[in-house]
Amino acid sequence: MAFLIRNGAFMENIILPNEKIEDLNIKGYRIIQTKDGFCFGSDAVLLSKFASFKKGDRVLDLCSGTGIIPVLCWARNNLSRIDAVEIVPEVAAMASRTMALNCLDEQIFVKNADLKNCVEIYGKRQFDAVTCNPPYMNQGGGIVNPNDYLAIARHEIHCTLDDVVHVASDMLKPHGKLFMVHRADRLCDVISTFRKYSIEPKRLSMVQPNSKSAPNLILIEGALFGKVQLKVTAPVCMYDDNGNYIQQITDEL
Amino acid sequence: MAFLIRNGAFMENIILPNEKIEDLNIKGYRIIQTKDGFCFGSDAVLLSKFASFKKGDRVLDLCSGTGIIPVLCWARNNLSRIDAVEIVPEVAAMASRTMALNCLDEQIFVKNADLKNCVEIYGKRQFDAVTCNPPYMNQGGGIVNPNDYLAIARHEIHCTLDDVVHVASDMLKPHGKLFMVHRADRLCDVISTFRKYSIEPKRLSMVQPNSKSAPNLILIEGALFGKVQLKVTAPVCMYDDNGNYIQQITDEL
Repeated sequence: MAFLIRNGAFMENIILPNEKIEDLNIKGYRIIQTKDGFCFGSDAVLLSKFASFKKGDRVLDLCSGTGIIPVLCWARNNLSRIDAVEIVPEVAAMASRTMALNCLDEQIFVKNADLKNCVEIYGKRQFDAVTCNPPYMNQGGGIVNPNDYLAIARHEIHCTLDDVVHVASDMLKPHGKLFMVHRADRLCDVISTFRKYSIEPKRLSMVQPNSKSAPNLILIEGALFGKVQLKVTAPVCMYDDNGNYIQQITDEL
Repeated sequence: MAFLIRNGAFMENIILPNEKIEDLNIKGYRIIQTKDGFCFGSDAVLLSKFASFKKGDRVLDLCSGTGIIPVLCWARNNLSRIDAVEIVPEVAAMASRTMALNCLDEQIFVKNADLKNCVEIYGKRQFDAVTCNPPYMNQGGGIVNPNDYLAIARHEIHCTLDDVVHVASDMLKPHGKLFMVHRADRLCDVISTFRKYSIEPKRLSMVQPNSKSAPNLILIEGALFGKVQLKVTAPVCMYDDNGNYIQQITDEL
């Protein structure tokens, strides 16, 4: 399929009737999303900007969804390879088609799998960095339909915060980095869970709608077997004092 | 001594040659401080504003220093009694004289003691709330003189974060509140230690020099045996965008 797309001949076959292609305004990359709402959000964009990598890093993206984070991380960094894991077959297939659409299918490898099987799939300690925009809602935090893709992306149906951090801890090389975005009200759980799996929080940014409002998201970087030394950055504001979306968030996307 | 002070007759005896009396601009209360630098800081003021109490609460202040936090908490709330613990004899004596100076020596009781003896002194589970502005620096975080009062106030020489939270956990009634101010870079340690002693973080404020700068302090409220539910507030800024000290911090002080 990738070859056909590269020729541009069968582009119409790459999306399903309920899907659309959106331009990411960075290096010509585009993303396939469903029309009815399975779209990436600003949290994915924020995480891809917050994450920092070394040249040649091998990266794993957990709970990858549409594959937005791998595409943006690839676009902005000089990485050797990204692996992406998504549990919902249809969503993983959509992400794979996005990689083909962007001619990134030999750089970003989407796997339809339960992240709890990552050790069997990839082996332990193979990654320099792990990124994750996990489901935010606690299990039991509301009535959800387990067949609903959006519910799976938002609620801890197939994986909990504990599962994600546990897997990240297994997959990272020593001193490898975990980059995560989560809800501000889960801050204590995130910190506790990082430490439970020997990932020491090193950098934290609170994300606020504006400079005077309470944060609703956190961006956090941890290092496997890192020493205790946290840097809290200035808050990241989504809008300026006049209500305009801040360029820092929107540039290159 | 308190009687004499109430008459105003021997006021000159209440301070030592190296001390001064400062007006707190709230209900006429004043505080005795040393001229060479053992003065309260904005962190104590912030904590006394952050802390919230119910009418008639009995409060314990740990690492009390000059007694600034008990005086401000008494001034702003309707409390039944405050106990304050300070390990340095000279500082505890100074705090006691402050209470006498303010005719608060039958409301706020300063004890010169090691906080690790609180259970023997007060018994367990006697307090509705505990406040603490503890030493910020890790043990081993620098060369310090153990006879230096300022060093004792700033470094974990006589008590660690773990000691303070452990004692608070023993002293609080179930669902009693611990209010603490600490350095932002100790956030993970604070959260981990709270949870270690069954104090669940419930409210967190980041304190920043201004709206665009990184936080340097945190204000945190935890509840003994509380359920997991964190509210992160809007950041508290010390200065506005023009560099003026914000009234919210300075009013009533």
